[in-house]
Amino acid sequence: MAKDKQFVKEVADMTVDFPQWYTDVVIKTELVDYGPVKGTMVIRPYGYAIWENIQNEMNKRFKAVGVKNAYFPMLIPESYIKREAEHVEGFAPEVALVTHAGGEKLTENLVIRPTSETIICEMYSKWMQSYRDLPILINQWANVMRWEKTTRPFLRTSEFLWQEGHTAHASEAEAREETIKMLNVYKKFFEDCLAIPVFTGIKTEKEKFAGAVETYGVEAMMLDGKSLQAGTSHYLGQNFAKAFNMKFLDSDGELKYAYSTSWGTSTRMIGALVMAHGDQRGLKLPPVVAPVQVIVIPVAQHKDGVKEKAQEIVDKLVSLGIRAEADYRDASNGWKFNEWEMKGAPLRIEIGPRDIENGVCVVARRDNFEKTNLSLTELDKIPEILNQIQKDMLEKAREIQKDRVKFADSIEGVLSAVEDKCFVKVPWCGCRECEEKIKTETAASARVIAPDDATGKKCAVCGKEAKHIVYFARAY
Amino acid sequence: MAKDKQFVKEVADMTVDFPQWYTDVVIKTELVDYGPVKGTMVIRPYGYAIWENIQNEMNKRFKAVGVKNAYFPMLIPESYIKREAEHVEGFAPEVALVTHAGGEKLTENLVIRPTSETIICEMYSKWMQSYRDLPILINQWANVMRWEKTTRPFLRTSEFLWQEGHTAHASEAEAREETIKMLNVYKKFFEDCLAIPVFTGIKTEKEKFAGAVETYGVEAMMLDGKSLQAGTSHYLGQNFAKAFNMKFLDSDGELKYAYSTSWGTSTRMIGALVMAHGDQRGLKLPPVVAPVQVIVIPVAQHKDGVKEKAQEIVDKLVSLGIRAEADYRDASNGWKFNEWEMKGAPLRIEIGPRDIENGVCVVARRDNFEKTNLSLTELDKIPEILNQIQKDMLEKAREIQKDRVKFADSIEGVLSAVEDKCFVKVPWCGCRECEEKIKTETAASARVIAPDDATGKKCAVCGKEAKHIVYFARAY
Repeated sequence: MAKDKQFVKEVADMTVDFPQWYTDVVIKTELVDYGPVKGTMVIRPYGYAIWENIQNEMNKRFKAVGVKNAYFPMLIPESYIKREAEHVEGFAPEVALVTHAGGEKLTENLVIRPTSETIICEMYSKWMQSYRDLPILINQWANVMRWEKTTRPFLRTSEFLWQEGHTAHASEAEAREETIKMLNVYKKFFEDCLAIPVFTGIKTEKEKFAGAVETYGVEAMMLDGKSLQAGTSHYLGQNFAKAFNMKFLDSDGELKYAYSTSWGTSTRMIGALVMAHGDQRGLKLPPVVAPVQVIVIPVAQHKDGVKEKAQEIVDKLVSLGIRAEADYRDASNGWKFNEWEMKGAPLRIEIGPRDIENGVCVVARRDNFEKTNLSLTELDKIPEILNQIQKDMLEKAREIQKDRVKFADSIEGVLSAVEDKCFVKVPWCGCRECEEKIKTETAASARVIAPDDATGKKCAVCGKEAKHIVYFARAY
Repeated sequence: MAKDKQFVKEVADMTVDFPQWYTDVVIKTELVDYGPVKGTMVIRPYGYAIWENIQNEMNKRFKAVGVKNAYFPMLIPESYIKREAEHVEGFAPEVALVTHAGGEKLTENLVIRPTSETIICEMYSKWMQSYRDLPILINQWANVMRWEKTTRPFLRTSEFLWQEGHTAHASEAEAREETIKMLNVYKKFFEDCLAIPVFTGIKTEKEKFAGAVETYGVEAMMLDGKSLQAGTSHYLGQNFAKAFNMKFLDSDGELKYAYSTSWGTSTRMIGALVMAHGDQRGLKLPPVVAPVQVIVIPVAQHKDGVKEKAQEIVDKLVSLGIRAEADYRDASNGWKFNEWEMKGAPLRIEIGPRDIENGVCVVARRDNFEKTNLSLTELDKIPEILNQIQKDMLEKAREIQKDRVKFADSIEGVLSAVEDKCFVKVPWCGCRECEEKIKTETAASARVIAPDDATGKKCAVCGKEAKHIVYFARAY
């Protein structure tokens, strides 16, 4: 198509160079820009508006399960990070250190939080005296810092924004239940709000969070067949409780260590939206999180009454609770159509002199390019259309995914499947060597353990009896 | 009163030791706790909920004047801070420095933002090509770091949360207008949402922001007569534009430096709420920002139907858009009444078996302790009562303030007024020496220049002709 041709001047062809397509899209739609310090990003208003919509939707869901927001300090004494043995091993190599402040050298170096288990457990240990103080269910929205060598906007940056939930419980059963509950909150959020179906399950020992007993992952398939770890939920057992003396007096009169969990998602989710739904024209945003759900384009806007009618439509939509805007800029319709397709607005409304005469407007869907006429008296049908788009986008993503999950019981099979842009279900004996061999030879890593029964299956590497069926994929 | 007596066991008497009263209130109501690193604070859920309400209300007001949110990196190259001469002088002494990251020494030290003019102007200079790209109107909600020697929760901490707006304009007139516009947005926000009447005006040269041409301050009078600088709006002229090469091609074809502004408010506002409204029993929160607007106390909750009726009331209020909760804890009514008075919930509803029989509940206002019966069929009057409380709290604060502004034309007069817990209007010649002399001898600093005409007045220090009437006060 001519339009697509014109477009590829600006944005790389996704079928030829997917990484360049991604970079072009996130930069040219003004979601993000590079910060002056290597590996940092500026989240521009259009990108930040998506983040705010994500926050609103998540906050509702957190509140519904009794979680409250709070804020903990960003600077953590270096000694805290070292108290939990696995934790320090995992995070020490990538922390940023504050050594001087207020013109003086500090007596103890401070770490900019890479995550906050340590400082939060320290505070919880102060706050919990008896079992009556439990559970503690707190989340924080914050910036975190992990010094990464290779960075890409949203996917991997030294500083990023996230939410991290931290809970403390009187019993193992309750903490385990919380871990799964939050995993499912995430799963439902991804499906209902981001229109992204996800793979969830437990991580292998090698891939789990540094300091966790068990980590559950939320893995999303991108259009290039790679997996994006889009969220995690950790059962921490008493690991951090013991490191931070997080004890409470139980109802039986005994002093016990609490059980804790933590769970997080980040601005990576914006990268997931781009790579799960986008096309050659750019972004395709699900209505629930789109900054502009309906863009109104006044056609021949210099003519009498066109701008006024466009504004009337915007006002009507806003009154229906829709995020709607009109684009009155001095540019051609074609340019505006392209621009808003690139920016992924779910619905475009065109209104010109002839439409006004006929009492209609043209409604164009971004997801499937369907164009229909809608009577100006029926604008209250727009919310329904947006709901339909949301559902159709999830359905479309499910369909793409369906054909992209293969099974392989040999390393060659894994390699061929991931080169075919697929996730692969692989029978695995459970040992670290076999897991690492697959990674070395195929560049695919264990994402999560699949729910499938492994009985009778043999490990794809060593041929011994398989313990689990594991999803392998190349990953961001 | 017996109740007050009982209470002072927990919270210091505000008339005897105001600073201790403040600390007791913010800690015991669980607004905040001390972080492990000296000078840091943990904002606990009850305090953070106030902050979220503040954010929601401010975001609405920012949006109404065309400002969008974004997010800029926290780490700023040290060289940036040094580019604007006054800016470095003001901020260099209190920055925290990151010198190592990812296990290596950095080639250039990075500063944790004390404020973001430098990095934001650097980005704006990339984003603005022509006058068509202007104005740029962006705000960010972020954490900032200023290494302070003496700290107090909310009032002065090394890390705090704030919003910082940064705008760039094609003309001086427009930038100046924006500076005043945002000052007025703040003023109205303080009055309408925090129920705090404020003093606004231009700051003296000595008190202005490091790098600004002019700083306008929002000063709030606390119950001890001291002033809290609760917000500032800066006209930056072309100072940062020149330091960061922030140029645009104007409509006349010439390349020009832009004019910029910045304006900010912080978690200090929570401290202002405490000290502008509190009383011997603790917090007194205005409904607009109160985390719990109505607390429902089931009296004799073990009796049949009491809890159910309490929950019915909560559900009804929530359906009216009110933040309502019931307190079902296993504690006496007296304890709960005290607890929620201390926590400053604007309205308490008591419901017991006899009330249910009579079809009424007891409604008790926190601000004036008025108790009335309300028919259970008239719960939809509660929003109106909350509105009334909001108005009455502002009115009460205005009244307190009215008698607390004096005039003095001598240093002795200033001293006596501030020791009497007042703001003082002082005629001033405009020279730094006289301003500093007042500060040295009275511990009161110039807050903002009053709108009053100074004609015919003599400087309170040197006796020369006064240029301005200035509000002096001791300040947080």
